[in-house]
Amino acid sequence: MKDYTTMSPREARALIREGSYTRQTSGMCGGYAQANLAVLPAEYAYDFLLFTQRNPKSCPVLEVSDKGSRLLKFIAPEADIARDIPQYRIYRKGVLQGEYTDVAEFWQDDFVSFLIGCSFSFESELLASDVPVRHIEEDRNVPMYITSIDCVPAGMFHGKMVVSMRPLPPDQVIRAVNITASMPRVHGAPVHIGDPGGIGIKDINTPDFGDRVTIHPGEVPVFWACGVTPQSVVMSAKPSIAITHAPGHMLITDVKNTVLKF
Amino acid sequence: MKDYTTMSPREARALIREGSYTRQTSGMCGGYAQANLAVLPAEYAYDFLLFTQRNPKSCPVLEVSDKGSRLLKFIAPEADIARDIPQYRIYRKGVLQGEYTDVAEFWQDDFVSFLIGCSFSFESELLASDVPVRHIEEDRNVPMYITSIDCVPAGMFHGKMVVSMRPLPPDQVIRAVNITASMPRVHGAPVHIGDPGGIGIKDINTPDFGDRVTIHPGEVPVFWACGVTPQSVVMSAKPSIAITHAPGHMLITDVKNTVLKF
Repeated sequence: MKDYTTMSPREARALIREGSYTRQTSGMCGGYAQANLAVLPAEYAYDFLLFTQRNPKSCPVLEVSDKGSRLLKFIAPEADIARDIPQYRIYRKGVLQGEYTDVAEFWQDDFVSFLIGCSFSFESELLASDVPVRHIEEDRNVPMYITSIDCVPAGMFHGKMVVSMRPLPPDQVIRAVNITASMPRVHGAPVHIGDPGGIGIKDINTPDFGDRVTIHPGEVPVFWACGVTPQSVVMSAKPSIAITHAPGHMLITDVKNTVLKF
Repeated sequence: MKDYTTMSPREARALIREGSYTRQTSGMCGGYAQANLAVLPAEYAYDFLLFTQRNPKSCPVLEVSDKGSRLLKFIAPEADIARDIPQYRIYRKGVLQGEYTDVAEFWQDDFVSFLIGCSFSFESELLASDVPVRHIEEDRNVPMYITSIDCVPAGMFHGKMVVSMRPLPPDQVIRAVNITASMPRVHGAPVHIGDPGGIGIKDINTPDFGDRVTIHPGEVPVFWACGVTPQSVVMSAKPSIAITHAPGHMLITDVKNTVLKF
């Protein structure tokens, strides 16, 4: 069996591009940053870029492509944005049209791609400090929830913040806050600790995206702003078309997580 | 004589708006963030916003106004962008046309204003830790230099990074790095320490903007990315019109510097 945790980003992207890996990417290519994707026609790009500037906790932008380009210059210069993510989603007017392992056939000359930092980047830092990451332990996708927290609107874009959740023993919460606070480009410190109802989550065992994970007795749910927020926002704003990654199925970049601290 | 250091931002802006204060703002309203200004017609706004995203050290955006608005929503809700800065500059096609204490008469419906973090924000933190700030000691404007460091281009915007310089005793340099590294929204850690020639500065005693300051024997010049960079970029890119603050003459915001750490 292949060890995906120690694979290089280039090897992993090659497997993904050829279609032999289509699952979620948490824990893959340990130490390398993964990125959320939101692709929009250029007519929406300014409003969306402004939205990310106004909502840096949920939308920390790692790179924006040039118009029409499927290539990146900085975080993964050899990647093909349209083929190197294990699973994509296409939305038209805010409605999910389907999931694809390759979106090259849908590419438009006016597409602009936004690559947004992902909380998977701080998971290796948490594990290195013996802070447990439950969904990796249980080999599931991270649980994600649409909250009652309003994003700051920009132009046509508005919507609720999406968060990811990791349950922690109480004595590990402070350590987790400190570790993640040092990495603002991958969502930074948590946005909420404890009572799910406080941020509008009705049932912690029914995530809106990803999988349920076990919360052991006495553990505290800790919530981080999540790069799936753009999908929630796209659903609200209803642009003519938008392509995103499927939650948990990220672009693996050539940038080390530790570099994102600076 | 008025004590500008302890004045509230609202009081200071009122003096500036009525024209009774037109000097540089370093040291005013201690503890409150000050901001650089770049105003551009909307047709340039996407490229410029992308430029700031690609050059976060020199252009950490604190807020972007809505199109045509002279008001801000977040960092100074009562400020008038066109009147509350002590001195403005107007550039047409990259050429400085003049300096003004009020630019209301030049305002256009399609203007978008970018407010960018300023290194003055970390100066009170430096002083609080007994790190000397020479230009405040000498009551001058901070010395600024156009370097040989290329900014990452975005669309029509390209140019050299501008830096501000503070000379420090060698045993204070590490402390200054650590203090400023914790404030990435106001330029963060230095970009260069020591030899001015290493970043293309020919004569440390002849700044491109601001005033010369004394460098005592044995002191090390320390360089931080500067929010005047947009002016260097505007001069290179030659948009039809651009309005900026005059270097050192900032917008005083209602946001405390310490809040910008999070």
